[in-house]
Amino acid sequence: MPLPFADRLNNVETSAIRELFKLLGKPGIISFAGGFPDPAMFDVEGIREAVNAALTDNPGAALQYGATEGYNPLREQLAAFMAGKGCKGVAPENLIVTTGSQQGLDLLGKTMISPGDKVIVEGPTFLATIQCFRLYGAELISAPVDADGVQTDTLEQLIAEHKPKFVYLIPTFGNPSGAMLSLARRQKVLEMAVKYQTLIVEDDPYGDLYFGEAPPPSLLALSDSVPGSRDLLAHCGSLSKVLSPGLRVGWMIAPPALLANAVMCKQFSDAHTSTFAQATAAQYLQAGRMPATLAHVRKVYGERAAAMGQALRKELGDAVEFVQPKGGLFVWARLTGADGKVKDGAELARRAIEKGVAFVPGAPFYASNPDHSTLRLSFATADVAKIEEGVGRLGSAL
Amino acid sequence: MPLPFADRLNNVETSAIRELFKLLGKPGIISFAGGFPDPAMFDVEGIREAVNAALTDNPGAALQYGATEGYNPLREQLAAFMAGKGCKGVAPENLIVTTGSQQGLDLLGKTMISPGDKVIVEGPTFLATIQCFRLYGAELISAPVDADGVQTDTLEQLIAEHKPKFVYLIPTFGNPSGAMLSLARRQKVLEMAVKYQTLIVEDDPYGDLYFGEAPPPSLLALSDSVPGSRDLLAHCGSLSKVLSPGLRVGWMIAPPALLANAVMCKQFSDAHTSTFAQATAAQYLQAGRMPATLAHVRKVYGERAAAMGQALRKELGDAVEFVQPKGGLFVWARLTGADGKVKDGAELARRAIEKGVAFVPGAPFYASNPDHSTLRLSFATADVAKIEEGVGRLGSAL
Repeated sequence: MPLPFADRLNNVETSAIRELFKLLGKPGIISFAGGFPDPAMFDVEGIREAVNAALTDNPGAALQYGATEGYNPLREQLAAFMAGKGCKGVAPENLIVTTGSQQGLDLLGKTMISPGDKVIVEGPTFLATIQCFRLYGAELISAPVDADGVQTDTLEQLIAEHKPKFVYLIPTFGNPSGAMLSLARRQKVLEMAVKYQTLIVEDDPYGDLYFGEAPPPSLLALSDSVPGSRDLLAHCGSLSKVLSPGLRVGWMIAPPALLANAVMCKQFSDAHTSTFAQATAAQYLQAGRMPATLAHVRKVYGERAAAMGQALRKELGDAVEFVQPKGGLFVWARLTGADGKVKDGAELARRAIEKGVAFVPGAPFYASNPDHSTLRLSFATADVAKIEEGVGRLGSAL
Repeated sequence: MPLPFADRLNNVETSAIRELFKLLGKPGIISFAGGFPDPAMFDVEGIREAVNAALTDNPGAALQYGATEGYNPLREQLAAFMAGKGCKGVAPENLIVTTGSQQGLDLLGKTMISPGDKVIVEGPTFLATIQCFRLYGAELISAPVDADGVQTDTLEQLIAEHKPKFVYLIPTFGNPSGAMLSLARRQKVLEMAVKYQTLIVEDDPYGDLYFGEAPPPSLLALSDSVPGSRDLLAHCGSLSKVLSPGLRVGWMIAPPALLANAVMCKQFSDAHTSTFAQATAAQYLQAGRMPATLAHVRKVYGERAAAMGQALRKELGDAVEFVQPKGGLFVWARLTGADGKVKDGAELARRAIEKGVAFVPGAPFYASNPDHSTLRLSFATADVAKIEEGVGRLGSAL
């Protein structure tokens, strides 16, 4: 007799994801498929010093149970880190540490979503967000994205029509779109939060990974200038893309009532995030190594992004269109079908694997109305030579 | 306007828990209130060697994203660890790593419980289990516990009557009861699983903390001798009580379909457990340090348990009754009201705080029909002298 699983499992469709993951592991393949940072960029010696300092300074705290809200020395470091990014008035008690920013999303789902509730997301958006919110029974509505991020006019219509529980955005170098929400639209989003009394969730794992000038301030940083908006804003951050995903250290900044409920839910989800990892992260930040680490990853990823853009133009020409990313890990491209070339991302992905290059077709990143001509190409883990070779293979697959 | 939180938050009552936590932090107090291991017992140097080895051997893996199922070298070590405890046929792919065993419970809730589903737990049981399952909408039914663990005759009646989604048990040195399920009853539980085709969840964080002879085999180990029962058994384990809670490394062994759904849910809960902590735990186990660590904690906690039992008999006499624990971290006692002494655990807790000793009254550990005369006393974190002094204070509070 099969086990009687919960009804909520019927809300998720994981076959698309499983298909994607199958692409990742083949030998000899140049992969643009992952959403991973390059492990060669990890500051292993810095992390080694940090964990040894944590085990010397206060081993009892680093290895013991801790508060569900997070390890206080880390909360203090993260508040200072956010202040350095222009977010004023974020005290340590205004943030909780989460097990990666993925857990921030899970806690938002658990805290906010009743079955049948509506949530607006970008189309396209982060795949694991779609599945995470659907497991709590959300009905997802997609707001379209262009080179300046989510289209705020359409977003406003959708908010007015659907009265969502919240709006989930990755305003800066989003996964998969790579788009950067313009300053004017950021302002507009915060004004809409107040006008419609709608919670906005800003997921910001990529904001520090800019290649040229810094992006506009985060919604959190801007919220100071839009009265009432801070009370309707949750912000999720992460060390995964800039330092190490393996630590699983993220954080969430939110209004007090939401934070209190998220802490309650977290207590019964995993008690707290690894204090061993938290104490290590706290020591790392305190040691002042982060600015040099950020400068390094920005430089390397910036070179790779430029190389990928050039190679795509050279090898694929009119057959693709894309906006050259100003940060993050991804090029989001659209097959034009020019000269009768293939226009379906999934079809090209199959051909590309045979030519020895992997990427992720874009359709699964849409909660609704997928654009099947889209592709997500990560430039993070292959070096410039591999990027050129891989895009060459992609050209021959076309 | 208050935020529109999810309906599921109405299912939990956290004021009892908040009251408990307030007891824990007062200065000068001897605390029997926590459920923590003694940090003085942490093998800090062993863990330091382990993390440094992890960062030397394969830093990329220790700091990168990993499989949701867990870090393979750790899954191999844990399968070997379980084999050493008599659990045959547990291959690495039969277990997943969880962020503490708390996350195992959360994944069982997410995977199995639809709102309104019934789940049978012990009365009393682990507080965070009650709240965790209620957040998924479970209706909890309590099966009574005596010195030999859950009363299987009553449990069978409850299963037949309520047809629960599953039965949750802490068979060995349970929190808070400290009880040890007898071998005969273990056999009976497995036979009931098969007879009623009901999933049994064995939560086993304390099984390795025995003071004299080893307890009967776990339900998992015994399931080999009850045909069909392994397919209806989930087992949660943890390094928290024996090595370090701060690592947040637990595991779950379950039938393949349940494990696959739990992995899917975990992917959208926290992506994976910290690979940094997992690689450290794998190195620790591989280094062969666990047997000596276990011998040490068994000896120290055994001395403290004996000291607390003696002091309770000497200082409180007829006013309490309890079964001397054979393992774990807790004495579970009942106030008898002899000689007109206080019979209410919460009242005694208030008086005890004034006398400078803290413990947790037992009533909140019941999902239904609380026994208000009960107390949970942890002997783990105070040394023998403090235990004697603290129980003396408890006597004067009576």
